Amino acid sequence: MKKLINRPEDVVREELEGIAAAHSDRVRVSLDPYYVMRADAPVQGKVAVVSGGGSGHEPMHGGFVGMGMLDAACPGEVFTSPTPDQILAATKAVSGGAGVLHIVKNYTGDILNFEMAADLAKEDGIQVEAVVTNDDVAVQDSLYTAGRRGVGVTVLAEKVCGAAAEAGSPLSEVAELCRKVNANGRSMGMALTSCTVPAAGKPTFELGEDEMEIGIGIHGEPGRERRKLATADEIVEVLATTIVDDLPFKSGDRVLAFVNGMGGTPLIELYVVYRALDRFLKGRGVAIERNLVGSYITSLEMAGTSITLLRLDDELVRLWDAPVNTPGLRWGV
Amino acid sequence: MKKLINRPEDVVREELEGIAAAHSDRVRVSLDPYYVMRADAPVQGKVAVVSGGGSGHEPMHGGFVGMGMLDAACPGEVFTSPTPDQILAATKAVSGGAGVLHIVKNYTGDILNFEMAADLAKEDGIQVEAVVTNDDVAVQDSLYTAGRRGVGVTVLAEKVCGAAAEAGSPLSEVAELCRKVNANGRSMGMALTSCTVPAAGKPTFELGEDEMEIGIGIHGEPGRERRKLATADEIVEVLATTIVDDLPFKSGDRVLAFVNGMGGTPLIELYVVYRALDRFLKGRGVAIERNLVGSYITSLEMAGTSITLLRLDDELVRLWDAPVNTPGLRWGV
Repeated sequence: MKKLINRPEDVVREELEGIAAAHSDRVRVSLDPYYVMRADAPVQGKVAVVSGGGSGHEPMHGGFVGMGMLDAACPGEVFTSPTPDQILAATKAVSGGAGVLHIVKNYTGDILNFEMAADLAKEDGIQVEAVVTNDDVAVQDSLYTAGRRGVGVTVLAEKVCGAAAEAGSPLSEVAELCRKVNANGRSMGMALTSCTVPAAGKPTFELGEDEMEIGIGIHGEPGRERRKLATADEIVEVLATTIVDDLPFKSGDRVLAFVNGMGGTPLIELYVVYRALDRFLKGRGVAIERNLVGSYITSLEMAGTSITLLRLDDELVRLWDAPVNTPGLRWGV
Repeated sequence: MKKLINRPEDVVREELEGIAAAHSDRVRVSLDPYYVMRADAPVQGKVAVVSGGGSGHEPMHGGFVGMGMLDAACPGEVFTSPTPDQILAATKAVSGGAGVLHIVKNYTGDILNFEMAADLAKEDGIQVEAVVTNDDVAVQDSLYTAGRRGVGVTVLAEKVCGAAAEAGSPLSEVAELCRKVNANGRSMGMALTSCTVPAAGKPTFELGEDEMEIGIGIHGEPGRERRKLATADEIVEVLATTIVDDLPFKSGDRVLAFVNGMGGTPLIELYVVYRALDRFLKGRGVAIERNLVGSYITSLEMAGTSITLLRLDDELVRLWDAPVNTPGLRWGV
């Protein structure tokens, strides 16, 4: 295992200490229990947006805490759900009296623990709504999931909901927006290599030198099929066809196209992927109005990519363009 | 070779087509010869800042083109210097009448080709100043370099000089700032794995499963030594000690700390590195006033990190904080 870490059992804590040291202008970090919160939280009278999940997907979610996006993120151990007490503590810490939205990726552990935390928060008088993201079209059920997995759309939902909350929208509207983003977004990913969970010390799965996994999950869960390596154009054709046909995205649709790196993929390759996606969508009459190209929801050092498409309307464009000031996304401020 | 590409010989062109498709709001791309320029270039009356070098280091340099940073970037083939005609064409395209600064990393081919282009531009009546960055403390000479290699400081110089040019500083001052950043900046890197140049199809060098290369160059050039794997804290101690002792950075100094990923290193590890660097510098009495954590000067899919420290003063802080709107760095707009 080749990683820039100290002891495997210290990775998450040390990462959080690094985030705290680097970004104290924007976030504060609790180490007991683990959560990252806006430096100015709780923002009185504003809906708070909270997410979380296993670590190893950075910058998601801790890197998306700040003005215009998340109020708090709860990182579990690597690829492990955060515990109810973490989520409860974060929820209480950022509650500003206008309710809290939990954005939860569809993994069984995440759902259970967020539900438990929401129940406890409600007992404390905090209004909580939860929205589950499940945008991954690759497989119906998966290793840690009943139903579709929540992946790239989560990043987009966090941005959109954060902007709405910042603008003063009430909890019901922010939650409705989250459902809207999830309903209009679809994703699919692939891997060229496995990743290695620090505590495991060996690759999560094995892939031959001439193989790739199509439809991979962000924890290395099996996808649709293992295939011979193909070109970037062929890979994009497979991912984008599946995504577009699923919603379906139709000619005339406006979309945000998100080309994501899995952690070990350099930007030069992501632009080759973006080029192919741009051509594919032009061929389908789908217009890219906004885009995001980079590694925003990762799987440790996995090499690979995922594509997320979000059907846009004027409201979503406006919220996407709104100012954001987080370690992972920043503009307009 | 596992990469998200089509034919190796098309990687750079297709990457540029991807950049053009993704970022037409901010940049325009010339494919013959290759260069990336600000969408609104030439900006009349403003000093233009131009850089370039081999591809494979993305987002450097093409990702740093835009308001407040570079006016143009000239990408060569992967790990190959751009040609004089590229640099000349870019220089002419962005010249707004106030002169052009060439920021050149210290590699023999880059130096020669930028010099030739500068001579030709001067014949065309364009005032050109060139500043060479050579911040890598690892080795004195290297595979493609007489003297020290130019690495991470280049990113910081491009930001600072771009801000000064945007603010209307004359060419002599922008060039002087570039020399100041280079003089006050030092870097060193290391690799856990090699990278593979697409056209070569096999790793540039071999590293054992328990080995790392300390002082690696951004093209995989040999560093100071090959060592047994060590912890992140130990690696930072080696890199940071060498950097700090070189300038030297002294107790009371204010710095920008730049923890860079080499392309295949996930963000979670970079924060573990940042934590260690923060502690190291506190121990030396050096205050981190600004930071940059992410993969900004990469070596294809190499796993590893580099650290750059830049000694700050109020002028540099102000220019660092100034608005920037490029695909790779964006704030304040």
